[in-house]
Amino acid sequence: MAEKITPRSEDYSKWYVDIVVQAQLADYSPVKGCMVIRPRGYALWEAIQSRLDTMFKETGHSNAYFPLLIPESFIHKEAEHVEGFSPELAVVTHAGGDELEEPLVIRPTSETIIWSMYKKWIQSYRDLPLLINQWANVLRWEKRTRLFLRTSEFLWQEGHTAHETKEEAEEETLKMLEVYRRFVEEYMAVPVLTGRKSETEKFAGAINTYAIEAMMQDKRALQAGTSHFLGQNFAKAFDVTYQTKEGKLDHVWATSWGVSTRLIGALIMTHSDDRGLVVPPRLASTEAAIIPIFKNKNKAEVVGYAEKLYEQMKGRYKVVFDDDEANSPGWKFAEWEMKGVPVRIEIGPRDMENGKAMLVRRDTGEKEAVAIEDAADRVGELLEQIQKDLFEKARALREDNTHTLESYDELKKLYKEGNGFVDTHWCGSAECEAVIKDETKATIRVIPFEQGDCTGKKCIHCGGPAQYRVIFAKAY
Amino acid sequence: MAEKITPRSEDYSKWYVDIVVQAQLADYSPVKGCMVIRPRGYALWEAIQSRLDTMFKETGHSNAYFPLLIPESFIHKEAEHVEGFSPELAVVTHAGGDELEEPLVIRPTSETIIWSMYKKWIQSYRDLPLLINQWANVLRWEKRTRLFLRTSEFLWQEGHTAHETKEEAEEETLKMLEVYRRFVEEYMAVPVLTGRKSETEKFAGAINTYAIEAMMQDKRALQAGTSHFLGQNFAKAFDVTYQTKEGKLDHVWATSWGVSTRLIGALIMTHSDDRGLVVPPRLASTEAAIIPIFKNKNKAEVVGYAEKLYEQMKGRYKVVFDDDEANSPGWKFAEWEMKGVPVRIEIGPRDMENGKAMLVRRDTGEKEAVAIEDAADRVGELLEQIQKDLFEKARALREDNTHTLESYDELKKLYKEGNGFVDTHWCGSAECEAVIKDETKATIRVIPFEQGDCTGKKCIHCGGPAQYRVIFAKAY
Repeated sequence: MAEKITPRSEDYSKWYVDIVVQAQLADYSPVKGCMVIRPRGYALWEAIQSRLDTMFKETGHSNAYFPLLIPESFIHKEAEHVEGFSPELAVVTHAGGDELEEPLVIRPTSETIIWSMYKKWIQSYRDLPLLINQWANVLRWEKRTRLFLRTSEFLWQEGHTAHETKEEAEEETLKMLEVYRRFVEEYMAVPVLTGRKSETEKFAGAINTYAIEAMMQDKRALQAGTSHFLGQNFAKAFDVTYQTKEGKLDHVWATSWGVSTRLIGALIMTHSDDRGLVVPPRLASTEAAIIPIFKNKNKAEVVGYAEKLYEQMKGRYKVVFDDDEANSPGWKFAEWEMKGVPVRIEIGPRDMENGKAMLVRRDTGEKEAVAIEDAADRVGELLEQIQKDLFEKARALREDNTHTLESYDELKKLYKEGNGFVDTHWCGSAECEAVIKDETKATIRVIPFEQGDCTGKKCIHCGGPAQYRVIFAKAY
Repeated sequence: MAEKITPRSEDYSKWYVDIVVQAQLADYSPVKGCMVIRPRGYALWEAIQSRLDTMFKETGHSNAYFPLLIPESFIHKEAEHVEGFSPELAVVTHAGGDELEEPLVIRPTSETIIWSMYKKWIQSYRDLPLLINQWANVLRWEKRTRLFLRTSEFLWQEGHTAHETKEEAEEETLKMLEVYRRFVEEYMAVPVLTGRKSETEKFAGAINTYAIEAMMQDKRALQAGTSHFLGQNFAKAFDVTYQTKEGKLDHVWATSWGVSTRLIGALIMTHSDDRGLVVPPRLASTEAAIIPIFKNKNKAEVVGYAEKLYEQMKGRYKVVFDDDEANSPGWKFAEWEMKGVPVRIEIGPRDMENGKAMLVRRDTGEKEAVAIEDAADRVGELLEQIQKDLFEKARALREDNTHTLESYDELKKLYKEGNGFVDTHWCGSAECEAVIKDETKATIRVIPFEQGDCTGKKCIHCGGPAQYRVIFAKAY
């Protein structure tokens, strides 16, 4: 069995790593900054992929695959893009025993290689919109890494779309942000704020970046997904024009959007506890574990009784039957808790005598004895309830730790002592933003869509007229 | 619409490229030897993945993900492995702006990085068997490439398993070969020969390699999947031992097995024709296309009549309704043929008057008028029939072009004039094998499981006593 997990109260960072390693979600690899995603962690990624992929297809997107390697010169074609990504590139200089004429970089993101292909594929308005997604690995050489949250190589999806008009591309950008919000809130049970990024925080090469931002249990922010309106930047860099309905030539409008295996980190940091992983029912690869409790003398009866429930449930739920004799019931309880299975069903000799089963919620630890014939239905209700409760609990944490402040001293005090979201106002200058980041490590996470009325409001730093309502936080 | 496809009889290689490019399955990329898999090609890969992934899980395997980059020294730990893969490696020498202390290679296959992790994860017999699969991109720098069939980067799955005993590992090797055979024959409708590879042709680092081999329409062989029994080679190279039930320490036994996007090439080369792609129904993302044929005056009636059939079919089949007015019926027929949709349903004013629909098979071009109320059921029967007929047609081609020869002159004559499989005998010496390859370009594709009786048989080259029945062919 796993070793003891460091409690959150003692060391939050160590708690996180303990969960990841002891629940066997991921492991450190011999390659600096790169992780191994183990089967239990990969099962979470498969659940995320499967649902998101359906949502992408429902919104008209198709999957494709573009090369891993990109000619170095491509990265240089968009000015902001090269500035943003150059420091993180891994470079292939030799292949097949020879030095390459032009070095190739491993994709840190695929805008450049994809737009070089879109130039071939797009001639007329009839070729638009072009709505393509790619599931792939990308690499950004990172100095400080943390399993799932920041690794040099990670898995993600990247959507890249091309449109006739600015309006259509902006609509797509927001539509995909909304797909992300729905997925993360409804499936991962992680509440998020939505909004626009500041100029400083936006994607290198975008006109506007929109994001979903979640609060972790240590009250830090985590950017869980981004959607970029790229304007005509990449179309111009790669000279992608199309013939309009009116017969004119115009540059194409673009978006890109992505989420990554970082979502698994968000999932863990939002719901898990000192006993291990907590998985929201809608993403669980095992929804319930049935554990018969028996001694040698009554094994056949108890296992037989419990197995009937298993037979009844297995077509309806993802359920496992754990009648392994090598380990004690207590060991098994701890093990299924560590793995985050939403409902545990304990069935002992006394339950059998009373015609009952004991249902235990992973999230709250609450136990209830139910008549065996009602157990299957009750599990269904519990799964729905747990899904809702996990979301509400996370939302309550965020609300309790979001502070409406208008004084810079209070903001500094907050980040000196701890963490949280600060809901405040900002003049819009990159200078104020930089000073705040420098002095407190807090950054503008989003400029929320709900701006309210800024009239008469002042910038929390300089006191000048406020241009935006913004949310500050220290972030992962 | 697509341009004309070069007929197979005129130029088989050009025909293949025309299909791939004009059916928009893949495209050339700006990176030498790397392709772009376009949405229609990727949909085939998704169909292959989805079914194979289910079959892997049914046989007890879990998915995981290991790093793309491997320390160069790892490749050197297994003597045959480094010899086999060194010439094809792409090497990352710089990352994050600095020169790396040790170069990293892009995985050409993942045995080494995976076994370095298995060393951490395997201590006792209780940790075995370890049954892991990975869906990933790999890179082998190739001099001569061909879309799908041989590209520097390709997508594949690689299974890597660890076992207590030699017998168990050998059983796993053959079990996965059988999974491949079943998938390729039953879903892709591609008949294959199964057997072992010669020493010369086996995987670099394996004790034995087993393969499935198909015949393409030009009578060349294509290796469609391989399964390797690795013995204790990688366990020894990475010092992976386990405590046996008896308390002793022993090295672990291993297998690995993989299929790749090459399967898409095999699919095209087996079934497609001069009019475009032919997709077996069980892998088709569109099973049937309904095309109403109308003029302006009767549009509403004909489309309404055809749409009723669409409504009836759409819950049951993957069906599209093509009532686009921009293109003529003839254009659409050609387009759906190019895309390889198994059944086309034409419905014109006369069909409407007679209460009929016209069903057209993509594979044979056969047409049949059926009563509209029987059309949906009949489509189901046709899909099953097409699946069977494609397989049988490919098997007949292979049988007609497999020659049982015992004379080296006849073998040389065959490969001078053309192609085909030669079913013959071999003494087992690498020298004979090398001379035959040198003089005819034909190689031993498999040593079939069905060996028959070799007593009294002679090697086709040297005339010495035959050790094996073997199948020769020129291969992709």
